[in-house]
Amino acid sequence: MSGVVVQTIARAGSDVIARLGAAGVATVHEAQGRSGLMASRMRPIQQDTAIAGSAVTISAPPGDNWMIHVAIEHLQEGDILVLAPTSPCDMGYFGDLLATSAMARGCRALVIDAGVRDTRDLRAMGFAVWSTAVSAQGTVKETLGSVNVPIVCAGALVNPGDVIVADDDGVCVVPRADAEAVAAAAQTRLDAEEAKRLRLASGELGLDIYDMRPGLAAKGLKYV
Amino acid sequence: MSGVVVQTIARAGSDVIARLGAAGVATVHEAQGRSGLMASRMRPIQQDTAIAGSAVTISAPPGDNWMIHVAIEHLQEGDILVLAPTSPCDMGYFGDLLATSAMARGCRALVIDAGVRDTRDLRAMGFAVWSTAVSAQGTVKETLGSVNVPIVCAGALVNPGDVIVADDDGVCVVPRADAEAVAAAAQTRLDAEEAKRLRLASGELGLDIYDMRPGLAAKGLKYV
Amino acid sequence: MSGVVVQTIARAGSDVIARLGAAGVATVHEAQGRSGLMASRMRPIQQDTAIAGSAVTISAPPGDNWMIHVAIEHLQEGDILVLAPTSPCDMGYFGDLLATSAMARGCRALVIDAGVRDTRDLRAMGFAVWSTAVSAQGTVKETLGSVNVPIVCAGALVNPGDVIVADDDGVCVVPRADAEAVAAAAQTRLDAEEAKRLRLASGELGLDIYDMRPGLAAKGLKYV
Amino acid sequence: MSGVVVQTIARAGSDVIARLGAAGVATVHEAQGRSGLMASRMRPIQQDTAIAGSAVTISAPPGDNWMIHVAIEHLQEGDILVLAPTSPCDMGYFGDLLATSAMARGCRALVIDAGVRDTRDLRAMGFAVWSTAVSAQGTVKETLGSVNVPIVCAGALVNPGDVIVADDDGVCVVPRADAEAVAAAAQTRLDAEEAKRLRLASGELGLDIYDMRPGLAAKGLKYV
Amino acid sequence: MSGVVVQTIARAGSDVIARLGAAGVATVHEAQGRSGLMASRMRPIQQDTAIAGSAVTISAPPGDNWMIHVAIEHLQEGDILVLAPTSPCDMGYFGDLLATSAMARGCRALVIDAGVRDTRDLRAMGFAVWSTAVSAQGTVKETLGSVNVPIVCAGALVNPGDVIVADDDGVCVVPRADAEAVAAAAQTRLDAEEAKRLRLASGELGLDIYDMRPGLAAKGLKYV
Amino acid sequence: MSGVVVQTIARAGSDVIARLGAAGVATVHEAQGRSGLMASRMRPIQQDTAIAGSAVTISAPPGDNWMIHVAIEHLQEGDILVLAPTSPCDMGYFGDLLATSAMARGCRALVIDAGVRDTRDLRAMGFAVWSTAVSAQGTVKETLGSVNVPIVCAGALVNPGDVIVADDDGVCVVPRADAEAVAAAAQTRLDAEEAKRLRLASGELGLDIYDMRPGLAAKGLKYV
Repeated sequence: MSGVVVQTIARAGSDVIARLGAAGVATVHEAQGRSGLMASRMRPIQQDTAIAGSAVTISAPPGDNWMIHVAIEHLQEGDILVLAPTSPCDMGYFGDLLATSAMARGCRALVIDAGVRDTRDLRAMGFAVWSTAVSAQGTVKETLGSVNVPIVCAGALVNPGDVIVADDDGVCVVPRADAEAVAAAAQTRLDAEEAKRLRLASGELGLDIYDMRPGLAAKGLKYV
Repeated sequence: MSGVVVQTIARAGSDVIARLGAAGVATVHEAQGRSGLMASRMRPIQQDTAIAGSAVTISAPPGDNWMIHVAIEHLQEGDILVLAPTSPCDMGYFGDLLATSAMARGCRALVIDAGVRDTRDLRAMGFAVWSTAVSAQGTVKETLGSVNVPIVCAGALVNPGDVIVADDDGVCVVPRADAEAVAAAAQTRLDAEEAKRLRLASGELGLDIYDMRPGLAAKGLKYV
Repeated sequence: MSGVVVQTIARAGSDVIARLGAAGVATVHEAQGRSGLMASRMRPIQQDTAIAGSAVTISAPPGDNWMIHVAIEHLQEGDILVLAPTSPCDMGYFGDLLATSAMARGCRALVIDAGVRDTRDLRAMGFAVWSTAVSAQGTVKETLGSVNVPIVCAGALVNPGDVIVADDDGVCVVPRADAEAVAAAAQTRLDAEEAKRLRLASGELGLDIYDMRPGLAAKGLKYV
Repeated sequence: MSGVVVQTIARAGSDVIARLGAAGVATVHEAQGRSGLMASRMRPIQQDTAIAGSAVTISAPPGDNWMIHVAIEHLQEGDILVLAPTSPCDMGYFGDLLATSAMARGCRALVIDAGVRDTRDLRAMGFAVWSTAVSAQGTVKETLGSVNVPIVCAGALVNPGDVIVADDDGVCVVPRADAEAVAAAAQTRLDAEEAKRLRLASGELGLDIYDMRPGLAAKGLKYV
Repeated sequence: MSGVVVQTIARAGSDVIARLGAAGVATVHEAQGRSGLMASRMRPIQQDTAIAGSAVTISAPPGDNWMIHVAIEHLQEGDILVLAPTSPCDMGYFGDLLATSAMARGCRALVIDAGVRDTRDLRAMGFAVWSTAVSAQGTVKETLGSVNVPIVCAGALVNPGDVIVADDDGVCVVPRADAEAVAAAAQTRLDAEEAKRLRLASGELGLDIYDMRPGLAAKGLKYV
Repeated sequence: MSGVVVQTIARAGSDVIARLGAAGVATVHEAQGRSGLMASRMRPIQQDTAIAGSAVTISAPPGDNWMIHVAIEHLQEGDILVLAPTSPCDMGYFGDLLATSAMARGCRALVIDAGVRDTRDLRAMGFAVWSTAVSAQGTVKETLGSVNVPIVCAGALVNPGDVIVADDDGVCVVPRADAEAVAAAAQTRLDAEEAKRLRLASGELGLDIYDMRPGLAAKGLKYV
């Protein structure tokens, strides 16, 4: 099943991608019914960066980054590389040279269930990374993987062309076909939250805004 | 045992709380005989913030944040929310809306043996958080827990009204009844450390300042 | 085997140490054949600091920092303290007072397969630390360890006087005898990378620069 | 997306399932191109049990086992329950009563990326379990999940009706459509292994049987 | 706070302890409202052993087993040693000699949030152990801890004299004052379970026995 | 540094190896001053097996078992294969075919800081294994490592020809040159333990046998 490069993938529109990125991971995750979130071990190497883009997926053998070079040829402006090793691995698959190459092709971020290196350079270059490790340990280029096939990355299923939303809270995957509906639902949530935020900031309680007291009483909550 | 909200708790005085906060976690932990420290997996989401306050405790089911809404009603100026799930959980119990509500009631920090979300917003709002995970995964509001009961949070026993001291080194719990004595002992340590710091900075050795050479020789240390 | 202090160790020259530090962990690690890297759990407490120095090694019992005081007497300008406990331990062996003492002796960094405390102070003092935990938990001074003996720290063998290279990517150990050769090899890599970086930045692909297409085809890569 | 029960699923034939079970996890995993293996944290609670069956999948909220009751109604002889929580959870979702009910419906095993309890009883009943934790912590029945939808369990994608192969080495998922081809490939491997085993047992080397010496020499292996 | 030995503690009656042990961890944990369970990292070194006894507690420094010798003097027939280190530690605090001594005083089990050694001998001797690690690493006898003070062991609060219930599912702590009520509640559960087990074994569904269908429908469960 | 096979190594005598094996890991570890113990994540796949032998070491790339084939050619009767990957890896490097080959050359055990597979077969064959994971995930044969070079395995330095002692408590490495002295010291310990065991079994306390009461009093232990 490995050794395949899918050259043409469908992507969501840049407008809907931008709206999903602006909504952020927590809101998008809620808006699509709490699915698609990667595990919490997936962490950013930078702070206060939020991004969204189309997934170009890589299934790679542990400790082998050959397929990243293959994938870069298929990047388009606004894409995000998403790599899952076929077995757990914390090695540094990706550093400043690969980032230079990916940026030249319009890519602005990497999501990887493994390690990266040259993290200081990557931050300086403005190339955003979410990874499960930082490690200088280099990889080999000996065994084939695949590009633009479905992968499971940090516990989430990612199909090529899915929209990746990433910020300080982690990474969420929106199926391409759902992108428009999720973006709309996210906006609805944001609008509703704004009103609630004002009421909460004024000291009104969630207990009252959401009318929780009867439910709590029904479950038997006792005040002593 | 769950399903209880204790509405009135005793708190330490604001002056002693402030002194404990100024002393910091490492000094306070030493000053009370090295007890009360939470496990090192409890980490801040911000850097260079030190704080102290009175614990309003929450025992919550895994993945259920209903009790946070209940607890917020019982917050006073200077309180810190301390939440322990009844089973390990890395879900995002708390985000910017709950922080808005808690801040409106005078709360300035959360200590949680679970996940939080909206971390960028929380930092921007100046709401301090120590957590064991960051995750956008939302929680439900279905099952009762308790508020202001004794909890074990990241391995440390916390009674409501205990003083929580938190900084970049982690979180330490000071029993309310001990707060005054610990604050005094902490100040004594700080005063003593200042003198030692000057001697160490001048190049004098700890071996000599603390007169360690005889003890080392007695244990058989060999210089070769 | 414990209870030994080796007072005189050989060190690499300051020039070669500086060149290794400038090359950085990822490059040095590659330049010496991908050996000597500490495990990825070894992380900096500060960001964007790169350093190199000669290892003064400490083998310490778990939860006992007595030997740090002993080691400080043997520090020279430019040394780095490297501590491995004899059993896994996350306690805070080292804080601002020990850093003050070490700095007075010319030491500028600590690498420790255990915990540190006073991390805010350490950052403010400009004392760099790579550790596997942050913890305020204090240690005792009861049991002997050794100073300047070979140790295994975070999975890497460290002999006293080896060159420690540390930055945001982690920590790498260069055997003293290899320092000059590794520094030269690192420089060769840096020079070669610069040329590649320009070509990659212009949009040329690694597939072509490194002539990977025939190898990929030979392994059976299929484009679909 | 949650709150759905798919009542009718296609299953592989009992003959092919039996052949996959007889081949075992390691052989099946190789035979299908090294895909479908669950993470190594998925471990059996019993020793020396090998099994195969059709997956009835459950997507469950963390700490909520309501959907197991729903799933049991849809079990057929030879099925295996496969449960993934929507967020990491080590609670005990399943014990002897649920096993009694599942066995009454023909189910003989559970694969769960969470905890189980009553493990001694389960072993005594001959109900096989692979789990990522053992825990007596009980769950609630408050929030809907789904039955017979695609899930990601311990890093592997499982569609309802896929063939689950499990033994002491872990758990492997064979897509239903591939079952026949994988079983055939597995048998081919087993036949080939038998011949190799005899040669290896006689003292012949893998280096010679697989003709590895030229390849090693070409890569530069040096004998000293 | 350390350096204290409480010589006289109250214990529950042997009859109620025996009834709790017979009920087992999962049932007892449910019967007392799902509190008191130790974390799932606490695992037995033997299989198919169930036990209950009175806790003699030990708070010990990391890597220091001096206090076990002190505690043994205060053991009575049927007691269980429960040890929590004051900082995480996987060293082997306890082996066959200490087990010999403890057994001579009537103790039959150890629960320890750290490591043990001589595990083969311990199984052969019939001394039951629940631990969070197995390690041959020896400890020192240099620093005081305390005996029969409240401790937090694997996340659960244990007071001296509390009833410890342990089996293959883990370890649960029953406060001494609650022992009788919990034992009664456990028996009630066991009786009720027996009836349910028969109905489930006959193929009746939990959905019907517990009348779950209306609740599921009310939440919106959809059958497709 | 990789790509080297050292063909001739010195081994300890079979008699001293047998005596070390009979003494067991805990005793040997104590007898050599508490050094050489592998981390507690190194666990046996079988129960109640104790063994000792000479280390034939393998440094292997992550996910690549080519060097095991190379190493087998250099095995002698009584050797133990010891493998450390150059980066953390849980893949299944070793199964029943390699065990068949190794056994044909006189090898009876494997110690590996990675995964193994076919564990049921390995137990049935009587081939003992200590590993840090069990996984069916197969490896490749693409990149060179080395055989019979010094390695760090699970935190312990292993030189080829060192004596490996392994049992249910873990794995300890005895430097070849120290084997005779350690075996003698181990026997001395065993003799002394036997006498102590009898006294302890009779109910005499360690506090008295080891005369600990004055030391405890001097440290300030308080009985209340």
